[in-house]
Amino acid sequence: MNPYWNRRVRKLEPYVPGEQPRGRKFIKLNTNENPYPPSPKVLEAIRGAAGDLRLYPDPACTALREAIAEAAGVKPAQIFAGNGSDEVLAFVFAAFFQAPDPVLFPDITYSFYPVYAGLWDLPFETPPLTGDFRIDPADYRRPSGGVIVPNPNAPTGILLEPGALLSLAEDLARQNRVLVVDEAYGLFAGPGAHSLLGAASLVPHIEAHPNLLTVHTFSKMASLAGLRVGFAIGNEALIEALCRVRDSFNSYPLDALAQAGAAAAAADGAYRAETAARIRAQRERVTGALRERGFETLPSAANFIFTRRPGIRGADLSAALRERGILVRRFDGPRTGDFLRVTIGAAEDMDAFLEALDAALAAGRA
Amino acid sequence: MNPYWNRRVRKLEPYVPGEQPRGRKFIKLNTNENPYPPSPKVLEAIRGAAGDLRLYPDPACTALREAIAEAAGVKPAQIFAGNGSDEVLAFVFAAFFQAPDPVLFPDITYSFYPVYAGLWDLPFETPPLTGDFRIDPADYRRPSGGVIVPNPNAPTGILLEPGALLSLAEDLARQNRVLVVDEAYGLFAGPGAHSLLGAASLVPHIEAHPNLLTVHTFSKMASLAGLRVGFAIGNEALIEALCRVRDSFNSYPLDALAQAGAAAAAADGAYRAETAARIRAQRERVTGALRERGFETLPSAANFIFTRRPGIRGADLSAALRERGILVRRFDGPRTGDFLRVTIGAAEDMDAFLEALDAALAAGRA
Repeated sequence: MNPYWNRRVRKLEPYVPGEQPRGRKFIKLNTNENPYPPSPKVLEAIRGAAGDLRLYPDPACTALREAIAEAAGVKPAQIFAGNGSDEVLAFVFAAFFQAPDPVLFPDITYSFYPVYAGLWDLPFETPPLTGDFRIDPADYRRPSGGVIVPNPNAPTGILLEPGALLSLAEDLARQNRVLVVDEAYGLFAGPGAHSLLGAASLVPHIEAHPNLLTVHTFSKMASLAGLRVGFAIGNEALIEALCRVRDSFNSYPLDALAQAGAAAAAADGAYRAETAARIRAQRERVTGALRERGFETLPSAANFIFTRRPGIRGADLSAALRERGILVRRFDGPRTGDFLRVTIGAAEDMDAFLEALDAALAAGRA
Repeated sequence: MNPYWNRRVRKLEPYVPGEQPRGRKFIKLNTNENPYPPSPKVLEAIRGAAGDLRLYPDPACTALREAIAEAAGVKPAQIFAGNGSDEVLAFVFAAFFQAPDPVLFPDITYSFYPVYAGLWDLPFETPPLTGDFRIDPADYRRPSGGVIVPNPNAPTGILLEPGALLSLAEDLARQNRVLVVDEAYGLFAGPGAHSLLGAASLVPHIEAHPNLLTVHTFSKMASLAGLRVGFAIGNEALIEALCRVRDSFNSYPLDALAQAGAAAAAADGAYRAETAARIRAQRERVTGALRERGFETLPSAANFIFTRRPGIRGADLSAALRERGILVRRFDGPRTGDFLRVTIGAAEDMDAFLEALDAALAAGRA
């Protein structure tokens, strides 16, 4: 161990993101990217902003927050914008969760949550999902440092109804604790009343729940994983806390091009709705095709599915797909190891996936 | 105080960046932006990268680090790239400085340092600058949690010779502590042997000093404040520690456009050298013009000057310049309050500054 690493860095157990192969020989169904390009208006906005790069960007992200507010049906002061939802989540862990009671999140969920807890030195506990891989809100009704759950959850894709979460938020409010709902995949549950949010979004309830914060990203719903823009929506005082952490870390986390591009994306709800609908249609088709092949697929409201075929080892199948040019993601663990998490791409990507799967199954049988 | 803020967020004292007026009616000499546009190759590279935004960016920033390595005369494994040098510095404070001994930095320096110390709960002490506003390395030869100094220092602009810092690095190595040298303004000291570094850069010494880390930014030297790209150079093990912190915070802090733009900027040393030379020439001219007007200006190696006129209150002069359309920066404090920090712009900006100054002085006298 290097003598110059401090105690914190020695203890960290960093997150490992899905593989980003250089050279692009693979069909990437491993990191939940959107198969469609971003709205053409995004590129136009980026070109427009490129003339001013010598100046610092707007630290308040004013135009971006206005565009998000308009699309989400909230006020700009109820929005925090960050460098991807990963940065927003890092600030959330820094600002709200409070030792000594443990932060609570599911045992099977976004694997960055325990990493953030480590970074900020927060104890955590992970109530197990039920036998059918669902979050049971009753497991979170106990003294805690705060609760975070994705909705839909990842990598299961399963959606929890808003009512159960709102009742949990009330419980947490009585302890002065926050409920954070990570809606990264929310739009793929089907469109809500507002063009930026899914049908089950909790955003319409933030006024009634001052301890409720939702987290969002442009990466998947707006095909902008390469631009790194995420945001949170909640009560003004929660947003102010996030600003305080940001301004103690990096006053300008969002560059001028990202601000302009994401603002244009926020405003193009029609494009987003259309691409999300296409992805949902592929999700249903592939789920059916997998059922015909003997796979069990959890009911997904996201742009990925979590699927396994009893009797086949996930590691073997994942390796066989990789040999055939298809990348999927797998998570070690007694309950998850035999599942594949497969991103839903365009029709031709999914044709290639099913074809490679058939070849792999045939080779396995031979 | 909001009941949902945790103890950390309540204690934070966030950094306050220089004003970014919206609408641009001012000549901005307040945030050390470069008056020239970025290299035309930067815009070309950004256009080239805009087609791939649906995919996550390269988390390792490979091409960018290769371009920096080439321009700085080091290996890619000795480089860490981040979302502005502010983010790099936040990670530095997280990875290396170690309580209970205090982190040491000057009393008059970049005002974000105490904020980072607060974020990561690190005690710090601030040895005062000497009577002529210099850093005395002898003040840092004592048990500490690590040392960080900018070179040239800000807001003084004064450069410390490399020899004194290298000897301090040896001292710190014996305590297993790091020396971080923030070279944000390094190139304005005059060009070094490598096109990315100033003449007094410590980068050529990182091989001999495994506890020495330098921090850099494209914001000023490459006119890219709006793109948010900074980097650190040091021993591979120090770089690995920064990667561990990053991967516990946000695996992809640099978007695809920022990576491409900064890589192109790194490669265009000729453009950078030419614009820096023009700024240095203006710095000397303005320093002379101020001397004629009775000002005392500290000897600057940066793209700004720190200047005062005995008998005139800094707050009054700053307000009088603002009324005349010129923004400069001022820092409260018994030793700094009467100084103005004036960014060196293009010739016409500095003409306007001197003209506004003359008008303000005449009005004050009337």
